[in-house]
Parts: sequence; C-alpha cells; structure tokens
Amino acid sequence: MVETESDEILRDADKKDVALLVVGDPFGATTHTDIILRARSLKIPVRVVHNASIMNAIGACGLQLYNFGQTVSLVFFSETWKPDSFYDRIKENADLGMHTLVLLDIKVKEQSEENLARGRKIYEPPRYMSITQAVSQLIEIEELREGGILTPDKTLAIAMSRVGGSEGQERIVSGTLSELLSQPPEVFGEPLHSLVIVGRRLHHLEVEYAETFAVNRESWRSTARDVYGCALD
Amino acid sequence: MVETESDEILRDADKKDVALLVVGDPFGATTHTDIILRARSLKIPVRVVHNASIMNAIGACGLQLYNFGQTVSLVFFSETWKPDSFYDRIKENADLGMHTLVLLDIKVKEQSEENLARGRKIYEPPRYMSITQAVSQLIEIEELREGGILTPDKTLAIAMSRVGGSEGQERIVSGTLSELLSQPPEVFGEPLHSLVIVGRRLHHLEVEYAETFAVNRESWRSTARDVYGCALD
Repeated sequence: MVETESDEILRDADKKDVALLVVGDPFGATTHTDIILRARSLKIPVRVVHNASIMNAIGACGLQLYNFGQTVSLVFFSETWKPDSFYDRIKENADLGMHTLVLLDIKVKEQSEENLARGRKIYEPPRYMSITQAVSQLIEIEELREGGILTPDKTLAIAMSRVGGSEGQERIVSGTLSELLSQPPEVFGEPLHSLVIVGRRLHHLEVEYAETFAVNRESWRSTARDVYGCALD
Repeated sequence: MVETESDEILRDADKKDVALLVVGDPFGATTHTDIILRARSLKIPVRVVHNASIMNAIGACGLQLYNFGQTVSLVFFSETWKPDSFYDRIKENADLGMHTLVLLDIKVKEQSEENLARGRKIYEPPRYMSITQAVSQLIEIEELREGGILTPDKTLAIAMSRVGGSEGQERIVSGTLSELLSQPPEVFGEPLHSLVIVGRRLHHLEVEYAETFAVNRESWRSTARDVYGCALD
C-alpha cells in the first residue's frame, strides 16, 4: 500500500529512477499528493505523467463534465457504521442542479477484526461495492434524512462499470434509482462500478445521449421531462 | 472544425475505419458528444479511447479534485460583449467553499468582420487568453457585480500552463489575484493557460502543496490562514 510504504518506495529514489504506476490520474488520490510532498522534502525530483481518470472518463455517460459538482465517495456500511456526509455533498450539488459522480468503495488487503487483533497477516478477499449495494445505501440514507434528493422513483442515475475497458467490458445503464435497484447484478458487469446522480440542470442532449443506456426508455424520458422539467420533443 | 464538418468526417465511416484525434478527453467537449450522436443515428459503431484531460490533470496544482465544483469557461471580452454568467457559477461554487477550474478562451480560424462580410476565407492569427487577461476580466466583473468572491487581495488562485507538458513547459504559479496580475507575462509560459479559483474549503495539505508555486510564500500562507481560515502551523 502506498500509504504505509511510501518511505520504502522513496528509499533509493535520490540515487536511481523509481516509478510508481497507479490506476487513473496520479492526482485522483490524496495519497499520491502526499508521496510527492515527501519526495519534495527529501529533494527528490518528481515527474508526473497524467492519465485518463474516472473523473473525466465519466463523460462517457453523456452528461457534460462542466455540469458536475463535487465528487463524493460512498463507503461500505456496516451494522454500526453508516457514515452519511456524502448526502450533504450530493444535496449541495442537487440544490444547484448539478450532477454528482459517486465513487464506490473498494476493500482490498483488509484484515478481519480477529486477524488484526491477533496480528495475523491474513487478508479478506477483495470487495468492490456494486451498483445495487450503492443504490440501496443511498435510499437508506434518503429515508433517514428526507432531503428529497434521492427519491427511488424520481431521481435519475447512471450506473457505469469498467469505463474505457475493452470491448464488452464497459457497461452503462441509466434509469431511476428504483429501476437500477431492480436489475439483476449481471446487468452491471464486473467491477469497478461508479454511479452518477443526475442533477436538474439537465440538457435535452444529455437525456438523448443517455437514453440509449436506459433500462426503460419511456420512463427515462418521462422522468426527465416531468420531474426534471427538461424540454424534450 | 469538427462542428461544421462532422458529416464529412462521418461520410465513409460505415465502410471503413475513421479516427478522430482530439486534445484531452473526447467527452470534454459537447462537440464530440454530438458527433457520436450523429454516428449512432447513422448506425456507425463508435469506440472511444479516453485520455488525460485538463479536467483531471488540474490536480497537479495540489488542490484535491473532489473539492472542485462545476467548471466554467471564460471568453474574450470585447468592447460591447462581456458575458458574465461565469460569475454566477463561480459564486455557486464559492458559496459552498469549492474550487473552480476556469478554462480560458481560444480563438482559432476566426475571420475579421470585414472578411466574414466579404466572404473571404482569410483567418486571423490564433489567440489564446493569457492568465493576465483572464484575471483582469474576472476583476472587472467583480467590480460590477460586487459578490466579494474575486477580490484582488483576498482571493487565492493558481495559474497553470501546459499542464503535463514536457520538462520546462509546464508552469504553475499561485498567489492572490493581484499578485498574479502583476507578474510579467513570461512567468506563465506559453499557452494554453488555465486558472483555478481557490475555494474556502481549503485543506492545509493543499496550501502546503501549492506553496511551492507561490509568487510570495508568505502572503500565500497568510491569506490562506487569515482570509480562508485554514489551520496552518
């Protein structure tokens, strides 16, 4: 893990070239900003090669990037821990009519509480949050907070998986939250999954573009028109 | 131009492979979404290859991507035309404490009014908005609108040029708007330029990271601390 092993990564970097290969753009994660700061303090020159990232590739769903507000992350809920600050962020975006990219949690190299307590380096199988789980967590918090921004039958969303992946890997599925929730898991394909919550500042070209991916074209259009107030033919 | 020649680009695309190479990510511009819609209506299969874009490479300034609100574009003002709707968008972001990426205007293949009127295909030399011009336009509109979001001595910004460019090409300069305005043009390097307006939801790690690029480190830190209320040592 970059977080815990940055000293190791940087150990001989003042004497020889060291490369750190990451998924997406290096500046997508605070961790990488942090390792550059450490390198700087050690007077190690750093060169960054930018890359496509979900932060821009999300445009593949047909919503315009300049209509997105801040990006939020959604973590796996447990029985006792259901952090919901993402809700305030989505609401801030929604109040301005902006779309929200929701990044879904990944658990890799996690230890069970027992293994952690006993100091056993045995790791749980990796877990990737699915669209189904994400949507059900969103709805759970909407029921609690009642802000009216994540209403199952009225809020449009676009599920995306393996964006930019090779032929047949990428999946894009659009619909109301309840339509997405009722899809069998295989519809969304393999992880990683991301979810976009559609904001009210919705352009008819965005609706048309994403219609191709709709669970149900008719309800996609009618929700865009009647709930979002989008001018469609 | 893709806008006017999309039919030409797509003409034989049902019979042979046609590639359209663009700057940044294809979904960064509405134009490309539009040409994909046209291709779809002609039943021409399309494959998109994602790429790094200023929308994510902007993270190189040290501000975290999830703290950015919507992106705005700033066009060249003329004597008679000074569109200022960007101001409302920056204000929406600023009210929530979010950073704003400001994309600066480019004029290529423009005709003078006279040449246009006479139907002469003579084009003006390309123009790229500089940081200096951008900042002075922002301040001009602030003086008109008085929203207090683009105050010369109190608002922090980060100028970026040729992000991701080869050694010595990329420039990053941070400071108050008035500090940026008083820099000689060569400080910002060659176009293309972009500008980030720093929002109040500013983390001390962001301040530290961008301090390296500051016109004046002391005023960078003191503005972050005293005006933005950022907890610094």
